[in-house]
Amino acid sequence: MNFKFTDVNITGGFWKKLEERNRNITINAVYDRFSDTGRFEAMHCTWKQDSGIPAPSIFWDSDVAKWVEGAAYILAKHENPDLMAKVEDVIDAIEENQWEDGYYNIYFTVGEPESRFKSRLNHELYCAGHLIEAAVAYYEATGRDRFLKLMEKYADYIERAFVTEKTAKFVTPGHEEIELALLRLYRCTKKEKYLDLCKFFVNSRGQQKEEVYPFANEAYDQHNLPARELSLAEGHSVRALYFYTAMADLANQANDTELLSACKRLFDDIVNRKMYITGGVGSSYIGENFTVAYDLPSENAYTETCAAIALIFFCQKMLENEINSVYADTMERVMYNGMLSGTSYDGKAFFYENPLEINLRNHYRNTSLVKKDRLPITQRKEVFDCSCCPPNINRVFSSMEQYIYTKKDGVYYVHQFMQSTLKDGNAAIVQTTDFPHCGKISLKFNGIKTAAVRIPYWCREFSISVPYKAENGYAYIENPENVEIEFKLEPVLYGANAEVNGLSGKAALMYGPIVYCVEGVDNNVNLHRLSFAEILNASLEHTDELDTTAIITDGYIYNAPESLYAPFAASYEKVRIKLIPYYLFANRGESDMLVWLDVRK
Amino acid sequence: MNFKFTDVNITGGFWKKLEERNRNITINAVYDRFSDTGRFEAMHCTWKQDSGIPAPSIFWDSDVAKWVEGAAYILAKHENPDLMAKVEDVIDAIEENQWEDGYYNIYFTVGEPESRFKSRLNHELYCAGHLIEAAVAYYEATGRDRFLKLMEKYADYIERAFVTEKTAKFVTPGHEEIELALLRLYRCTKKEKYLDLCKFFVNSRGQQKEEVYPFANEAYDQHNLPARELSLAEGHSVRALYFYTAMADLANQANDTELLSACKRLFDDIVNRKMYITGGVGSSYIGENFTVAYDLPSENAYTETCAAIALIFFCQKMLENEINSVYADTMERVMYNGMLSGTSYDGKAFFYENPLEINLRNHYRNTSLVKKDRLPITQRKEVFDCSCCPPNINRVFSSMEQYIYTKKDGVYYVHQFMQSTLKDGNAAIVQTTDFPHCGKISLKFNGIKTAAVRIPYWCREFSISVPYKAENGYAYIENPENVEIEFKLEPVLYGANAEVNGLSGKAALMYGPIVYCVEGVDNNVNLHRLSFAEILNASLEHTDELDTTAIITDGYIYNAPESLYAPFAASYEKVRIKLIPYYLFANRGESDMLVWLDVRK
Repeated sequence: MNFKFTDVNITGGFWKKLEERNRNITINAVYDRFSDTGRFEAMHCTWKQDSGIPAPSIFWDSDVAKWVEGAAYILAKHENPDLMAKVEDVIDAIEENQWEDGYYNIYFTVGEPESRFKSRLNHELYCAGHLIEAAVAYYEATGRDRFLKLMEKYADYIERAFVTEKTAKFVTPGHEEIELALLRLYRCTKKEKYLDLCKFFVNSRGQQKEEVYPFANEAYDQHNLPARELSLAEGHSVRALYFYTAMADLANQANDTELLSACKRLFDDIVNRKMYITGGVGSSYIGENFTVAYDLPSENAYTETCAAIALIFFCQKMLENEINSVYADTMERVMYNGMLSGTSYDGKAFFYENPLEINLRNHYRNTSLVKKDRLPITQRKEVFDCSCCPPNINRVFSSMEQYIYTKKDGVYYVHQFMQSTLKDGNAAIVQTTDFPHCGKISLKFNGIKTAAVRIPYWCREFSISVPYKAENGYAYIENPENVEIEFKLEPVLYGANAEVNGLSGKAALMYGPIVYCVEGVDNNVNLHRLSFAEILNASLEHTDELDTTAIITDGYIYNAPESLYAPFAASYEKVRIKLIPYYLFANRGESDMLVWLDVRK
Repeated sequence: MNFKFTDVNITGGFWKKLEERNRNITINAVYDRFSDTGRFEAMHCTWKQDSGIPAPSIFWDSDVAKWVEGAAYILAKHENPDLMAKVEDVIDAIEENQWEDGYYNIYFTVGEPESRFKSRLNHELYCAGHLIEAAVAYYEATGRDRFLKLMEKYADYIERAFVTEKTAKFVTPGHEEIELALLRLYRCTKKEKYLDLCKFFVNSRGQQKEEVYPFANEAYDQHNLPARELSLAEGHSVRALYFYTAMADLANQANDTELLSACKRLFDDIVNRKMYITGGVGSSYIGENFTVAYDLPSENAYTETCAAIALIFFCQKMLENEINSVYADTMERVMYNGMLSGTSYDGKAFFYENPLEINLRNHYRNTSLVKKDRLPITQRKEVFDCSCCPPNINRVFSSMEQYIYTKKDGVYYVHQFMQSTLKDGNAAIVQTTDFPHCGKISLKFNGIKTAAVRIPYWCREFSISVPYKAENGYAYIENPENVEIEFKLEPVLYGANAEVNGLSGKAALMYGPIVYCVEGVDNNVNLHRLSFAEILNASLEHTDELDTTAIITDGYIYNAPESLYAPFAASYEKVRIKLIPYYLFANRGESDMLVWLDVRK
């Protein structure tokens, strides 16, 4: 089981700073940009056909809902009347504009009221799911149940439209999200009907011919096969991972081993064949899609921030099904890299795409043309037309507590290393650490018979001050009291499977869970000429500029003749290479960036 | 000076086979596909506005003209009444449909007669140039002057429209070609007015504000600067090179040193910063453009076949200006690689784009989507909508004679190694060779005081049976009679300038002038895992399949752990790598292909 969000508190260290940045800066930055762009106003359904301004987008409800969910987690622990007033205003808008039957959706209410639930391609159930998640979070955070009641009414209507009365013109949605939301609603309200409705949506997928997006086939939105037959992570990566999350959650909730087997196959396909070293997933901008095995190009990596976040959700639900460190390892990989990279250092701007390489030359190569090559942007932006990632960042950064501890079969698990406390009745854990800056973890346990601490995949040398038994990547400790752990942190080069194109002979530097990168601003040379020395001879250096630990290693610059082509005579000049954490790239102006470098003896 | 096309005969060997393939197969294949697609019929201007079929394309005249030019060279040396009848039919069509004033253009005659010479973007002067080239070639090949007279009439009209009467609504064309054609027409007719008209078009470029293509700026069609101020090869690569060819030809014709200086700067920019090792140029599919220095990506290389051919033209004209082996070296590089690759082994199908890498995974990565990544096609096609390359191939393969010998200041130059004879009054050269299969060249000179033979850039060891003096890459021989030359042919690895992204530490294999590549069909492994051994230990092997010399070298396969990421521990397994000439890639079904491989000790 997961503990209640409020049972855990992050009390200091790396993630406390990020939580504060989110609470003080990012939540307001997203609110302001969403206000500027009319998203909050749109919730009031004031748009008129003849107004001359474009209709609200069909996914704006979800943008606002995710922001509300993020605000809810903040309000659970920090009094903020202004923030609460903003949330209440959203709820007012929903209450005033909810249809008699329970339906609520900005676009279809003001734009096409006759087209409610006519097409599975229209994101209505996706928006509904996010509204439900927000309502549950707000209730659990504040005890206020007005929003929850409105969303129960909506969920009841969905049940009638899709199951009892079948007035909806499709069976399953083209953008999943409702499924995982209904499970949250079920656990919050204890009403079986929501669990049943979740089962209906999960079990119905791939069971009948349904409308497909004109630009795709059935695999794009995961209705090519029944859920229990899925093996390959395919199609739109965020849709896929929201659905896999619901599958894993339902498997656990309903003890459905067949569904769990499918989840395991999908998880295996992702982490062993389709995930960047940063934890980013979804290699192609076309369709924001998962592609084929080992297709992990660096420069045009899509790796949407939302997909990284969704992979954390999937890992969390898998972890509730079974204890294996691969799930919390993967969560950690995503958290410190592909998720964190989505926000600027100042907390105000965002990447939708998180490439593993920036080569500015390729952005400016078409000198005489209007059209440019399609590449990820090189600097974060404050808001996007499709701005799903920023509020997703809000809700994750304000709820990191939920990923640290779980309890299963009486054992208390420590999955993540974040300075924090857990209070669970008479049981308690106090974790003190400066991780990931330092590998020391002090744990004080109280009233706990068995605890288990994850031994992270990147750690090759560690000490634990008390006897333990290692299993599935966890150190099990009986009757724990004070436990001192030290994971040796050191710069380590990682290689990739030989089937990943372009990475043969190349390596990426990691320091603990953090992937590092070179940036042009630190290394005054075409980054493609750099290679790591096999013996790194690394030193750490605090850089105030980004308040982080830079790593300086031995390396080489490739030299070649003046002419364009000449008989091969490689010459390498020794050089020191400066690397910074990948998640901090693109914070000092436009610059080249590279994660994978050749390795030379 | 260049010798007359008919003074030189290719009598055997490598290029004779290709000439025969063009004469027996390719010229007919292109004719058939152009007939199927209505191009020849269109010359008769029978299209009607209300016919329900699309209007002829604005560049179809040029397609047919280039085919006629290719046919003309064939007819010069081989009686072929059927081929001649086809050409005469085209000339009939032109004669019948030429306007009273001399104008001829399919599209504007039938589609928009009121819009003649209204916009520089419409390819009219480009089409006119190709028609003029074809008319000159046909006259010089057969002595028949009907076509030439028609085109003189057209050129006279162009002179009135652009110079005397200025009825044209623009000054310079958006697609160059007329300039070099007018020089040919001038040399053929000896009429100064055509030289003057050429000067008008060359000298007017970049001198006034003119219409730009909506998708580009002035550099796209080289009117950003006056010709004499150009330094950077920019914009559409075929337009650019046709123009640079005219500039170089005019510089020579008019002894214009300022214009020649600009040509030298442009040539330097191309061969030292913007040319693939195959001689291909134009890196970007967007605009078919030259891009920035050292931007030479392999997989999405555009390197249009026409641009390769146009680079040969430019080299030829530079060579007439000054003797330096870099021009004939570059011609040779293009001929044996980036030009030759444009035609299938059977002579019936064509590449418009000539990439240096095929990675099939990238062609099939978007499994659930209709839209695919934009990549060069992997198999040659018989015809394209914009099918400029196939007839360009026709005219070059049927006129390779013109690139072998020149005469300057009384010296007879041997630039290319092709079995052939030259007859120039009392002077004669007989060249016997199986080059590039073998490095032996036998030359018999008759009635020649000084000869000079190019020492190719790729040759590090050679012998010449008589005394010689080396200068500017040529061996000068006084009173030559029988001269035996042997260039040592051996597999050599070439590296690229360190600023070319992605090529640090990589090499391409060359054997004489021929660039080699690995294909998946010969090497049963992901090609990205392969690297060359620094000591190649190469053996040659004749492969009947493609009637060519394959090269087998020592190399390595990169092995990495089963998992997707693991601490770096490079392991390389020794392997023999099979390579074939690059120009023969993609002739045995869809396959991966790669030119540049890592090099390991």
